[in-house]
Amino acid sequence: MSNSIIQYLQEHQNRFLEELFDFLRIPSISTIATHKPAIEKAALFVEDKLKKAGADKAYLIQTKGNPLVYAEKIIDRSLPTVLVYGHYDVQPADPLELWETPPFEPTLREGKIYARGASDDKGQIYMHIKVLEAMHATQTFPCNLKFLIEGEEEVGSLHIEEFLKEKENQSLVAADVVLVSDTTVIAMDTPSMVTSLRGISDFQLDVSGPKLDLHSGVYGGAVANPAEVICSILAQLKDSNGRISVPHFYDDVIEYSPEERRKINEQPFDIEKYKQEIGIQEVFGEKGYTTLERVGIRPALEVNGVYGGYTQEGIKTVLPAKAYAKISIRTVPNQDGNKIAKQIEEYIQQIAPKGVQVSFRSLSGLQSKAFTAALNSKGIKAATKAFEKIWGKKPHFMREGASIPILATFQKELKTDVVNLGFGLDSDKIHSPNEHFGVDNFAIGMKTIAAFYEFFGKGE
Amino acid sequence: MSNSIIQYLQEHQNRFLEELFDFLRIPSISTIATHKPAIEKAALFVEDKLKKAGADKAYLIQTKGNPLVYAEKIIDRSLPTVLVYGHYDVQPADPLELWETPPFEPTLREGKIYARGASDDKGQIYMHIKVLEAMHATQTFPCNLKFLIEGEEEVGSLHIEEFLKEKENQSLVAADVVLVSDTTVIAMDTPSMVTSLRGISDFQLDVSGPKLDLHSGVYGGAVANPAEVICSILAQLKDSNGRISVPHFYDDVIEYSPEERRKINEQPFDIEKYKQEIGIQEVFGEKGYTTLERVGIRPALEVNGVYGGYTQEGIKTVLPAKAYAKISIRTVPNQDGNKIAKQIEEYIQQIAPKGVQVSFRSLSGLQSKAFTAALNSKGIKAATKAFEKIWGKKPHFMREGASIPILATFQKELKTDVVNLGFGLDSDKIHSPNEHFGVDNFAIGMKTIAAFYEFFGKGE
Repeated sequence: MSNSIIQYLQEHQNRFLEELFDFLRIPSISTIATHKPAIEKAALFVEDKLKKAGADKAYLIQTKGNPLVYAEKIIDRSLPTVLVYGHYDVQPADPLELWETPPFEPTLREGKIYARGASDDKGQIYMHIKVLEAMHATQTFPCNLKFLIEGEEEVGSLHIEEFLKEKENQSLVAADVVLVSDTTVIAMDTPSMVTSLRGISDFQLDVSGPKLDLHSGVYGGAVANPAEVICSILAQLKDSNGRISVPHFYDDVIEYSPEERRKINEQPFDIEKYKQEIGIQEVFGEKGYTTLERVGIRPALEVNGVYGGYTQEGIKTVLPAKAYAKISIRTVPNQDGNKIAKQIEEYIQQIAPKGVQVSFRSLSGLQSKAFTAALNSKGIKAATKAFEKIWGKKPHFMREGASIPILATFQKELKTDVVNLGFGLDSDKIHSPNEHFGVDNFAIGMKTIAAFYEFFGKGE
Repeated sequence: MSNSIIQYLQEHQNRFLEELFDFLRIPSISTIATHKPAIEKAALFVEDKLKKAGADKAYLIQTKGNPLVYAEKIIDRSLPTVLVYGHYDVQPADPLELWETPPFEPTLREGKIYARGASDDKGQIYMHIKVLEAMHATQTFPCNLKFLIEGEEEVGSLHIEEFLKEKENQSLVAADVVLVSDTTVIAMDTPSMVTSLRGISDFQLDVSGPKLDLHSGVYGGAVANPAEVICSILAQLKDSNGRISVPHFYDDVIEYSPEERRKINEQPFDIEKYKQEIGIQEVFGEKGYTTLERVGIRPALEVNGVYGGYTQEGIKTVLPAKAYAKISIRTVPNQDGNKIAKQIEEYIQQIAPKGVQVSFRSLSGLQSKAFTAALNSKGIKAATKAFEKIWGKKPHFMREGASIPILATFQKELKTDVVNLGFGLDSDKIHSPNEHFGVDNFAIGMKTIAAFYEFFGKGE
């Protein structure tokens, strides 16, 4: 990598941050319909900045939902091509009262940029736009670049998923690797790359009993209580060892060798710090597995919410008419969300007592598959070298418990490897009040991305 | 009973109803603090009407809560004395949009008085005030009368309970029977009296896990989930046969002989109509007992509400920090609420998994005991004769599943029998929108009360 790029990035960093602040001022919350104008504004902002950074072309692609921003810089068709994926939409900012400074008025404090989207994902996609600018300014392009930046990542990536299924679009965005900066490193002195993510399916379970809330004295003991029935059903989804009780649920789960599991557990991880950070006394999960294994290679079923009857102050002695629960499953590679949904539904219908109606349905309609990077791919190799060059250390390979729904789609539809080259920290408070992104993370991220292009372009 | 009383009651009935309408216009809701002025107004209304009806004295007794109204008409200390108990407070009226006419604008439609409190309990205590007036007007008092009308029945009767524990107050309200009109008859052609009511204790169960809601992808499968833990605990409170699983819970429950149980099941009861009215396909409860037995002679534990995590539209993939449930127990005679609370708490602490904090506490602080009338008492005998005279039929003795907290206190503190001489119907929609009370119920109720005084005064 030419020193001129490094120099350019350093010299212009203050301007880059000012531009990023403009980006962060746009409240492009995808879950809230009234923010649609901000979504449009953010898409146009990205398009404009890509053009100004030197893209040959940059334009919006309308979908049934929020627009995609596409751009490309093709130097030489014989060189490898990198497709950069990211998202310009952000999570809602509430509860607002917990923010030290307003979420859409970015503030620099102690070397950190505080704003909704600073780390997830505006700050991270802006690094890519500025590396494009630096390569353009210094005329040093080691590879071709394409960009596909979406506006629905926080609501399930429905329309980019549809987009990627069309042959014509697949040709447009075809690349040798998909590069994503939407994850974290372990620490500033401990580089890492996320090499697997779990899939996600979500469901609602509804239990209906009497046609209205009953007096729990007059009817108590004589009528099935939906709040109790739903608890009984949910309690039967896992055993006391934390293992999911749905028959055949684990059939397709890949078992790892002792050697592979040893490797997983070599990842830097301080269990005492982990417990302290989230405020628990003891961890709990599937017996026979460590915490890293439980989130990294084992599926999970979590009750995200449960509700039934009277839940305000004090007491109201009702026997509730209805109860419901929201449930999500994190799947691992080789598991099929549709198959699992069917298994769970059958099991629930089988254990549901008489006297109530039970229904089970998908909530978002999405069932994203788990993602696993090919560890010996050119992309992973180039990223490893980039870390070694810029950070002076090899990155750890991390298996994450969370999900980025679209990654498995890139692999399936484009037949292309995906590299997670993210520079956030777990402490960035993404999705929470006081989200932030370190200026140092932004700076080292840009350098590492530039180094990646260099190694990937050379096929090293 | 003199025909002159009957005649008086009939001649003045229209005026009585007009006065009752004035009473019903006062929104004396005891659970809502801003209705305190209406509470005062309702107490003063009752005091005034008792004075005008001929009481020797009538006055308010201030408590730490809402005032009691006390009145008396002492004819001859050698005659028996009846203490009339009732309440001038009412339930909240929401949801207001479901009322066909406003809850505090009483309306007469098809022979029924529609208003909040029409049946529970303003309409029923007003019958007593008007019978006093009729006896005063016709100078035919077969016994002495005392009145103790409270304003906190709908919020647990805390201050009348304290009042009744003072020796001085016990002397003031001392009587040979406590007469209560706050219950129902089976039908207008099927008279009945409630001879037992269950006690009630209420609790809140709290489960705390991590100090904040966690991302259910990042932590799913590795941290105990409070929403799941609470479901597991609640599910272990009853077995699949509907029997409460808490050790020793049934130790003090009285078992009835086959002959006694046969009698209980002779009570008029149409199970198909019951299921249809509440909209269920099958009844469910403790195995080996009928529906009438399940509410009449068996204790019940009901989850009145359960809450944890995200419960709005759609999904939010959190692993919730907290969950809670509201639980009430209906006890039967011989069961001790304090003992049971301790049993449940010990059981819950024993079954609670590690990794979460579990706490269990009384909600209202009240633990009312079950009530059973002495079936061979003078009061029950006089009431039976009154029904025979006015309704032409013997009343059925009914065991109710609900609770009137203060009745067991009357028995314990005053050592006095209690007679439930109520004239509502199950279809009156008490506590619900469109509460009503039949004008026929009001009229026959007054006559039956007058007949009761006659028989009780004579010691028949």
